[in-house]
Amino acid sequence: MDNIQPRTVGVCLSPALLPSYNLEESIVVVIDIFRASSSICYGIHNGAEAIIPVLTVEECIKYNSNGFLLAAERNGAVVEGFAIGNSPFSYTEDKVRGKTIVLTTTNGTRSIQLSKRQRAKKILVGSFLNITTLCNWLKSQQQSVVLLCAGWKENFSLEDTLFAGAAVEKLKEEFFIRDDAAHAALDLYKLAKEDIGTYLKKSSHSARLEKLDIEADIEFCLQLDTVDSIPVLADNRLIKLV
Amino acid sequence: MDNIQPRTVGVCLSPALLPSYNLEESIVVVIDIFRASSSICYGIHNGAEAIIPVLTVEECIKYNSNGFLLAAERNGAVVEGFAIGNSPFSYTEDKVRGKTIVLTTTNGTRSIQLSKRQRAKKILVGSFLNITTLCNWLKSQQQSVVLLCAGWKENFSLEDTLFAGAAVEKLKEEFFIRDDAAHAALDLYKLAKEDIGTYLKKSSHSARLEKLDIEADIEFCLQLDTVDSIPVLADNRLIKLV
Repeated sequence: MDNIQPRTVGVCLSPALLPSYNLEESIVVVIDIFRASSSICYGIHNGAEAIIPVLTVEECIKYNSNGFLLAAERNGAVVEGFAIGNSPFSYTEDKVRGKTIVLTTTNGTRSIQLSKRQRAKKILVGSFLNITTLCNWLKSQQQSVVLLCAGWKENFSLEDTLFAGAAVEKLKEEFFIRDDAAHAALDLYKLAKEDIGTYLKKSSHSARLEKLDIEADIEFCLQLDTVDSIPVLADNRLIKLV
Repeated sequence: MDNIQPRTVGVCLSPALLPSYNLEESIVVVIDIFRASSSICYGIHNGAEAIIPVLTVEECIKYNSNGFLLAAERNGAVVEGFAIGNSPFSYTEDKVRGKTIVLTTTNGTRSIQLSKRQRAKKILVGSFLNITTLCNWLKSQQQSVVLLCAGWKENFSLEDTLFAGAAVEKLKEEFFIRDDAAHAALDLYKLAKEDIGTYLKKSSHSARLEKLDIEADIEFCLQLDTVDSIPVLADNRLIKLV
């Protein structure tokens, strides 16, 4: 007899909606496209030994010794006194190879901690940079998946939702779509996919980021499949799964 | 000098996301298409003197005297012991004219109470049944608008989001779109508008409602502009604004 349960894929549009999800039997993919999850994927791919996600700037400062690389972002900008924030250009190979980075961000690191608190079976980090590697790995597992959009300050964001939709498109042949948000994310992605950058021009985050003069970061984070690594949380550290 | 502030329209995709919104300077439109907000619009239009939204079944029972009409719905079904729930067919003129209804539902009444707690400037009820009357009235006011989707048990629902998108389409010439959710709702509505019923076939709520054998209710709730009344909250009672 075949006992395999149908796998589901769901999209949680904001960490504030996590209470609707039972994560104990699911792999969670944390998504914070601009820019934490993109930079984490890039940094791990570039040989960072680990990235430790922490909730507060104070907690980050406690690691200020022993060769840790400290990274802190709030409201889109590098926190004063820190060398780097969450720009992917701070996670190049020459800067991160062999290093352990301690990172706190406005949205992404909080989503990782909340997923852990809700006892997610496994916590991965996803971005357009590693989408195909990520989805192929998810297909190889017999587990349901929750795509968790970090959003902006607990609210919905278009760019994270579009990535979730892109992932649903890759997974939908093998997974049962479990919620309305996954249908919506998929349809929005289909509308936007020919030119995601242009589509996102209307997003509020885009306007915020434009003020910060980081258009190069945005362009970088929308690249497809430039890395083939997947970060996974193990003992509070994000390390390379594959 | 022209001191008029630009009005904004935002879409709150779930009551769990309300903390992201300052409602004190906004008119809130509560949306629970299947079926509370549709039935409230229909009942008020059909001459119900008032509809009192209450959070719990127990609170509803307390009104069991003095000719109140008690209505209670949980998980899509009429609560045992109650004559009616939130099916629009229970809110026809012969049943509600001159009556005061006390109503508790899974999602809609909670959204009304939360909006009140966050000191919304005014709380209205919207549905496809009264969409044009509602949007014309909103355009006549010098206030920003938050379209609040009641969703399903605090999570995102397609049908409430589509209604929000339909309202954004009517308001966008005169209001500034304030959040990503409003852009997303508008784009989803544009995809679905030719045949909303068919589009919603994929929604989880549709599957839930199908089990309850209330397809006639769904069809009823998707009708456009069959009523020209707007319910408004005044002293904890929903009454006819226009």
